[in-house]
Amino acid sequence: MSKPLEILVCNDDGHSANGIFALAQAMKAFGKVTVVAPDSPQSGMGHAISIAEPLRLSKVDFDPDIDAYACTGTPVDCVKLATGVILKRKPDLLVSGINHGLNSSISVFYSGTMSAAVEGAIEGIPAIGFSLDDFGANADFSASAVVATTIVKSVLEHTFPPFTALNVNIPRLPLAEIKGIKITRQALGRWVEEFEARVDPYGRNYYWLTGKFQLDDDGEDTDIWALRNGFVSVCPVEIDATAHHNLAILHGWNLKLA
Amino acid sequence: MSKPLEILVCNDDGHSANGIFALAQAMKAFGKVTVVAPDSPQSGMGHAISIAEPLRLSKVDFDPDIDAYACTGTPVDCVKLATGVILKRKPDLLVSGINHGLNSSISVFYSGTMSAAVEGAIEGIPAIGFSLDDFGANADFSASAVVATTIVKSVLEHTFPPFTALNVNIPRLPLAEIKGIKITRQALGRWVEEFEARVDPYGRNYYWLTGKFQLDDDGEDTDIWALRNGFVSVCPVEIDATAHHNLAILHGWNLKLA
Repeated sequence: MSKPLEILVCNDDGHSANGIFALAQAMKAFGKVTVVAPDSPQSGMGHAISIAEPLRLSKVDFDPDIDAYACTGTPVDCVKLATGVILKRKPDLLVSGINHGLNSSISVFYSGTMSAAVEGAIEGIPAIGFSLDDFGANADFSASAVVATTIVKSVLEHTFPPFTALNVNIPRLPLAEIKGIKITRQALGRWVEEFEARVDPYGRNYYWLTGKFQLDDDGEDTDIWALRNGFVSVCPVEIDATAHHNLAILHGWNLKLA
Repeated sequence: MSKPLEILVCNDDGHSANGIFALAQAMKAFGKVTVVAPDSPQSGMGHAISIAEPLRLSKVDFDPDIDAYACTGTPVDCVKLATGVILKRKPDLLVSGINHGLNSSISVFYSGTMSAAVEGAIEGIPAIGFSLDDFGANADFSASAVVATTIVKSVLEHTFPPFTALNVNIPRLPLAEIKGIKITRQALGRWVEEFEARVDPYGRNYYWLTGKFQLDDDGEDTDIWALRNGFVSVCPVEIDATAHHNLAILHGWNLKLA
């Protein structure tokens, strides 16, 4: 009998979020599940790691079949501590999420949930981030859990492309209304920032970062198009950040130190 | 007479680091310089943004010709506040650094200095991150300042490739010993983590993240090869994270919701 698969579950919303509970539950069908997640919400943490502060781990109640740990650091710290200290090995699969809120288009850069998956890819682990188009703490993850199960099943039947993470975004629809799964590319777009300036009780200014998403891409092969048309989006994410198509342009500049 | 160029200078080591002072001084030759940098070191912050906490800005002494601001947030927050609140426009150029320590290979994901440049690229600003192979607070940035001047001069003479940031890494050598400038790709490699476990005075465990870089790439066209052979490395960085070469593989999986 072969050893059960070792599955690591992370997120950025914290170990007590409903999304990670739904994902970890769904993963029990595939192997031994370990949860390592931040002890508090870490949305927007991107690929941050803790180098100026030490990290703490504590075991937390989660599910009788699942060892779960809360970490004081970032989502990427959670992956590093999971592989280096808790599991002491590379898991067979890393799943991150289910994120409360989409991580489509440019949000892949800001998302701690996706950065945890990307960190897995950097470490050579098949890694998938799942995000649902619902920021609510009490979002309904039942359809998302079925989507995660379907995708993980397929992942385990195929050879996972090396040094790649899958960015899976799920529309807020009942399962029966989801039109299917689209393989997509990251839509070109950005957050247009609007800062809300306030004055504190001591007369000093402070700013809240707000913003709205601006789509600069009318392709029908993008993650945003898929979501807006009722599909689950599956976008492969790269860990080679080189803009290969621009290398020839830069060679043409003929850069020289005087 | 045309308006002077608006140049934004950011970093992750903080506004009082020697590296940003050297870079801002060098940029004065090209236009009006504004510094917006973290109020404390933010190395390893990646593309983190502050969404759970408000941000503060304060004007700081820097140089008589340069308006400089310290920001309580991350390097990416600095870029957003600079364009949204301080300059109220897109600068003509964003330079980030000069980082105390390299940001070659996979470090581009963890680096706040490079994430500030990438944020510039996302916002459509020509953006360059500079990093020197010297972590020391008192590192010698004189050769790096010449490198930055040379590269910015060339950037201003050419059309900057859109939605791209340049990742410039500089070897720790006197100017006369630098062999030249190479256009490179990001070397495949990763940080192999080793955690140092300690026990606090109250008997509880904590962990320091340490690690050493493992190169998994013997190409002679990489950033690491250039640096190890005495060259400045200039690598274009992409903001489309899609692993385009894996799209066909995923299409072949024929993913379907049951």
